[in-house]
Order: sequence, then structure tokens, then C-alpha cells
Amino acid sequence: MSYSEKEYDVIIIGGGPAGLSAGIYTGRARLRSLLIDKGLPGGRIVDAELVENYPGFLEGISGLELTELMSKQAAKFGLETLTAEVTGLELKGKQRIVKTAEGDFVAKAVIIAAGSDHVPLGVPGEKEFTGKGVSYCATCDAYFCRDKPVAVVGGGNAAVHEALQLTKFASKVTMIHRREELRATRIIQEKAFAEPKIEFRWNTVVEAVEGEGMVKRLSLRNVLTGEKTTLDICGVFVAIGLKPSTDHFKGVLPLDKAGFIITNEKMETGISGIFAAGDIRAHSIRQVIAAAGDGAVAAIHAERLLTLKVTE
Amino acid sequence: MSYSEKEYDVIIIGGGPAGLSAGIYTGRARLRSLLIDKGLPGGRIVDAELVENYPGFLEGISGLELTELMSKQAAKFGLETLTAEVTGLELKGKQRIVKTAEGDFVAKAVIIAAGSDHVPLGVPGEKEFTGKGVSYCATCDAYFCRDKPVAVVGGGNAAVHEALQLTKFASKVTMIHRREELRATRIIQEKAFAEPKIEFRWNTVVEAVEGEGMVKRLSLRNVLTGEKTTLDICGVFVAIGLKPSTDHFKGVLPLDKAGFIITNEKMETGISGIFAAGDIRAHSIRQVIAAAGDGAVAAIHAERLLTLKVTE
Repeated sequence: MSYSEKEYDVIIIGGGPAGLSAGIYTGRARLRSLLIDKGLPGGRIVDAELVENYPGFLEGISGLELTELMSKQAAKFGLETLTAEVTGLELKGKQRIVKTAEGDFVAKAVIIAAGSDHVPLGVPGEKEFTGKGVSYCATCDAYFCRDKPVAVVGGGNAAVHEALQLTKFASKVTMIHRREELRATRIIQEKAFAEPKIEFRWNTVVEAVEGEGMVKRLSLRNVLTGEKTTLDICGVFVAIGLKPSTDHFKGVLPLDKAGFIITNEKMETGISGIFAAGDIRAHSIRQVIAAAGDGAVAAIHAERLLTLKVTE
Repeated sequence: MSYSEKEYDVIIIGGGPAGLSAGIYTGRARLRSLLIDKGLPGGRIVDAELVENYPGFLEGISGLELTELMSKQAAKFGLETLTAEVTGLELKGKQRIVKTAEGDFVAKAVIIAAGSDHVPLGVPGEKEFTGKGVSYCATCDAYFCRDKPVAVVGGGNAAVHEALQLTKFASKVTMIHRREELRATRIIQEKAFAEPKIEFRWNTVVEAVEGEGMVKRLSLRNVLTGEKTTLDICGVFVAIGLKPSTDHFKGVLPLDKAGFIITNEKMETGISGIFAAGDIRAHSIRQVIAAAGDGAVAAIHAERLLTLKVTE
């Protein structure tokens, strides 16, 4: 199929809040717009049972529901969507070519809003037991450890959120953190300290995940004393950070050391016609409202670029 | 009253979407937070009958309703609010002192989200007839010109929005624009061109607003031919731009030529402990979603600043 048959004004890569918000704006601006995501739109936030801090939803809303609303809203304004894995990005004169497993797609402007993935522990047994007790998503998997002990690895907002969620299911939640205090926001820390089901193992790292068919226990080491212990668990929830989905954009776009895309406040990447928005950006605060704001900013500047016809 | 009696962690100036979003975040972070606005919270968007592009509201929502929800949400997390006019900002060691008509208030960090006001035409009769046929808000005043002719001055999104709103009330809407084409987004332009009640006077400026007690007509001049005409109207709606509410911050904060506050992508102003968010920022896209995103970003960086205790 020739490029011209699949040509768009704007292609949006990634269907989380940043991409969907961009789609609402490019759709309303009557730009021919395609959103490509490897799965169903929604992004990481679909794992959130209750989003309390998205302005406008007084009682909170589930991440899934919120992104479904955004997705329908974008479709209403004409955004097309495609389920496909993006495998690369090429510049060819004024054409920005998005390469996918379903073929190449051409646009005048591209907004990259592909988000970020979870960082793995990188210890023996982790891969083997993924989906068999090792999880990166309490919302998805907490149910499987009802009335059984679980562990959460990490000390940031995401980790404490996971632990709090898990208290509704598990008999006990042990938080394993390599430092002596949490990085999480105070209100969230307070909630965790007040929760009798949550215990803390400070200055501790996971050395291995062990089991037979399913996870049975963790090998732990205290980084100060060197003491080794084991912890019997039904499941371990890993929440130690995020990795941006930028492997396919290396060499094409300016990335920071951790691989996040560097942009200015217009969401421009420095490559004409290529914008980035949301959690994939350097210095993003990784919040739905900020990602959605980014998406709108990127879309408006993409529209201005196309209207002024200065893509090079 | 001594400063210490009125000391806050964070003071937010301005109760539009940027300020309210910041308040939701500082409240949830358990920071003692005060929002100061000269009127009821809401900002300029309360004039919007229907906000269709705020992600998450599939059928749209009125600006008033949206900001009321945000306001209640912020109050739920502990944000205090005060109705008072802010008259200045002072730095005194680590204290950031917000001066108001109701006294001085001290905080460790200040988030300025005071938005922007409408630019006046600056022609004879405008001041005299403000509230008597000269309006800056169709939502507020369209009702008074039912089945009568009105004019809108301007060519941007705001002007065309006003014109479209007015078609529901007025017998005819004349758009007066100093250039030969609109600056508004294409989808909005299309709507305006398709609307039989809207007529256009291109390359035309208002020279005076005339009347007796109430507005009766406009004196117009074609900027290309010099030809002068009059236009009988019931009301004129001025939508030629916005002026940031930064008069009280001159000399304290870095402002651009138009008076908007210059920030980096963390919403930092360059003055430690002072952040800006929303329409008052240079290069803001002046959209609710972006303002709300800004507010969250400012709040999270204010929280980090206070947690790290590096205010100087």
C-alpha cells in the first residue's frame, strides 16, 4: 500500500490521557488524526481503581472509566484509532513516517505519547514467575492473593498506592524498600503508616524470587547489616519505577539519560513536526491531569504548525 | 494581626482551573493551603456555557459547573479560600508575603494563577457604555439583546465563540475584524461561516461607541479604504484579547513584553518559592485542561521544595 493511501495530518502514538487529549484537540481542529496504540487505549492509568486528583471529578473516577470517556470524546470529534505496535519513526522530507507491525503510516506531524513501562527488579526468578505471583499491577492481580501475605517492592507513590490497594485483599502487606524512608507524598505515607496490615522492611532489597510453579518466597538482604532473610508470600508487586517507551525513537529524537524525550514547553522535540506529551517526557510529573494538559498543548502547536505550513 | 497567625505552607492567588487544580494537589499533599481570589472561584471559564474539550466530560460541561466541581474537590482535601483583592507580593527572607485588602498573608510558597483580563477597545464611549450595551461576556449579557442586532469585535477563537453564542439570542451578529481573515481554529471558523445569522465586516475597526443612556450604534472605519460607516446595534461584545493580571507583580517577577509571567516547565518563576500556572504564564495556550495541568505541576514542585526545605 502506498504512503498516500494512509496519510494523516497528525499521528498520535499512545492512547493514554496525553494521547487521547491530543486527539480531542486535533479532532476538533478538523485535522485528519490517527491514534496508534499496541493495546486498548487508556495507558497505565487504567490500573488505577480510583483517581481522586483529576480536577472535575468530585468523588473520583476509576482510571478505566476516565480514559474510556476520553476515548469516546476523541472519537466523537473524528479521531481514528489503530491497534498496532509502533516499531520506528522516520523522517523523509516533510513526511513523518510511523512504522508499525501493520505497515507504515505517514503524517505531517506526530505526537508521541507512548508513556512508560515498569522497571523490573532484575533478580533471579523474576521473569520465571511473572504472572505466577510476580506482578506489576495490584489492580490486576491482588484478587489472587485473598487472605494471604504479599510484598510490595518500592517506596514511591506508586508502591504505597499498590500496598494500600492490596490491604483490601491480602492478610498482610510487607513493603520492602532499599532506603529508610518512603519517597511517597506525605498524605499517602500517613495512610500507609496508619494501616495496620502494612509492615515495613527498611534498607532491604530482594535478591531472588523463589517458588515451585508459583511464587513461594523472597530472598531478602539488609543493605546495612548484610543480614539475609526469607519472606513467605503469595505474590510480590514490583513498583520501583518506570522506563519510557522510547527504544524505537533512539537516534531520531533527543532523549535524556534515562531515555525520556526532551521537549520545550510547547512540547516540541526540536525535530520539526514531532511533538511529545505525557509520561514519556523528561521531567513529567506523571499525573493524568498534567499528561492531558501536555496533549492539548502538543495538539495546538501541531495545528499551528500545519496551519502555517512550515513543516520541513 | 501578626504574620504567624496567618501563615500557610502555600498560598494560591487566583481561583480558576489552574489555582483550583493546584489546591487539589497541595491539599492532598497535606500542605496548609489558602486560595485567594477577588471574587468567587472559577476564573474566566465560568462564562463558558459549554466546555467541550475538557477531557473526561463526553457531553461537555458548563464552565461554571466544571469549576464548582473543582472547587468542592479542592475544599474536600482541605484547601481554604479567601475573597480578597491581592495588592502586592513581597519577599522577606524565606517568607513570601501576599498583600491583600484584607491584610497580609505569609507562606513558604506562592502559586500565582490569577489569569488574565479582557483587553478594552480604548475608544470613546466604551467606558461610558460598559454594562449598558458594551460587554466582554456574551454568556452574561446576550440575553439583553434578544431579537436585536449585535456586534462582536475580534477574530480569534474567543470572538467567534461569542458570535456563535449570540446567534441563539440576537437577530443578527456582525463580526468586526481589523484583518481580512479570522485567527480562530478552523472548526470554529467553519461553524461561523455556516451560520446565516453571522455577517462579517473585514478590515474594519470601531472608532466610537455611541448612544443615549444605552448603546445605539458603532462608528466604524475601513482600514483599507478609509470609508466611515455606522452600525445600529443593541450591544457590542468586545473579544480582542487578554491582559495578564500581573500589575502587582511588576518588579518582583520576570514578565514578558505583554506582562505574562515567564516560567520554566516546572512552573518556577526564577524566584525561589514563587510559581505561576495557567493563563497568566507566557506561552500558555489558554485552555482549561492546560491550566489545570499547570496547576498540578506547580503544586507538585512547590511540595517538593517544601519537603526538601530549600526555600531561601
